[in-house]
Amino acid sequence: MSVEVDERDTHDAIMAATYRALCEHGYAHLTMQDIADEFDKSRSLLHYHYDTKEELLLVFLDRIIGWVGDRLAESDTEEPPERLEEFVDKFVIDPGEEERETFALALLELRVQAAHNAAFREKLAAHYAENVDVVAGIVADGIEAGVFREVDPRRAGETVYTALVGARMYQVTMGAGEATLRTRDALAEFVVDDLLVEDRTVSEYAGGDFSKS
Amino acid sequence: MSVEVDERDTHDAIMAATYRALCEHGYAHLTMQDIADEFDKSRSLLHYHYDTKEELLLVFLDRIIGWVGDRLAESDTEEPPERLEEFVDKFVIDPGEEERETFALALLELRVQAAHNAAFREKLAAHYAENVDVVAGIVADGIEAGVFREVDPRRAGETVYTALVGARMYQVTMGAGEATLRTRDALAEFVVDDLLVEDRTVSEYAGGDFSKS
Repeated sequence: MSVEVDERDTHDAIMAATYRALCEHGYAHLTMQDIADEFDKSRSLLHYHYDTKEELLLVFLDRIIGWVGDRLAESDTEEPPERLEEFVDKFVIDPGEEERETFALALLELRVQAAHNAAFREKLAAHYAENVDVVAGIVADGIEAGVFREVDPRRAGETVYTALVGARMYQVTMGAGEATLRTRDALAEFVVDDLLVEDRTVSEYAGGDFSKS
Repeated sequence: MSVEVDERDTHDAIMAATYRALCEHGYAHLTMQDIADEFDKSRSLLHYHYDTKEELLLVFLDRIIGWVGDRLAESDTEEPPERLEEFVDKFVIDPGEEERETFALALLELRVQAAHNAAFREKLAAHYAENVDVVAGIVADGIEAGVFREVDPRRAGETVYTALVGARMYQVTMGAGEATLRTRDALAEFVVDDLLVEDRTVSEYAGGDFSKS
């Protein structure tokens, strides 16, 4: 095994340990020891790579933001209404998906941290802008294809993304287990259906599934 | 001055000091000393009334939730579209309103705290439900009056409130100074305009002001 591959393996193992530690402990009381406990190599190897929790979490943020961004942009279809539906669906956390809820809460805690920390803020603001751009791009494609009416794509993108972020916060902080499901349905009704030109409906594209209650 | 009035004055002074301390320091690092520093009476009087920061903040939450609820419900008009507009407007924090931003951030921190603290969660979940109810009530009145089309009032209420909460979070954590303004405009376009029966438009009710960009 080359040194480079070994380095990459170590990096991957540290990121995986950070993910597991965040899912288990959340951000507020997370320590380097918690991450080391999830790491199958030595704590000293962790400290060799990262001096502080903040430094490690910044790299981790880059990693997950890239991963989330790739996942949000991927789709099996070219149809704008279906792509919009798939984007929204990716934010739904079903009742009982505890690991995803805990992780979403940890991300929310990092987001609040961003108010006080410029490095976190810069990364998370870029992530926010990217997500809005993904939705705006889908809406713009739909307008060009004649399936969506003429609207400001960025405004539509920000509305959709902001409502999803708000619903996730409600779900993970208040134990409102169906908040993201309900917001998905509401976005289908108020935004997607509103965007579709008059002779189309959501169910034509989503087989009725998107707007199910 | 009677003992009762004196007690009430002390309580009011403690609540005012808590508000000022939260605006100045945020929640994360807030101490009883910070609150005492904003309190014109003695620190021992503060501790006579409240043993811990958590206990004090629970009472403070009750107070502001009641105040915010009253403020959100009040309106100069009976017209449902205007009442909906006024509700949404109350969430807008204009660029440069630093005190309101800091306070909104402190509330967000209390919200995140609710994930780990049942007493906070109970109060904030009730507050959330009340706010959704206010919007749902306006929408139901509009349907009854024939100005809004037939929709599920609670779903509409949750969409509006969730998008506003998401936009506030974006604004106060990322320094996105116009996020709540943009969300107000987007809600006018995607929700209020969508709710209005076909022969009405937002600008008829809002003098064009609500949907200004």
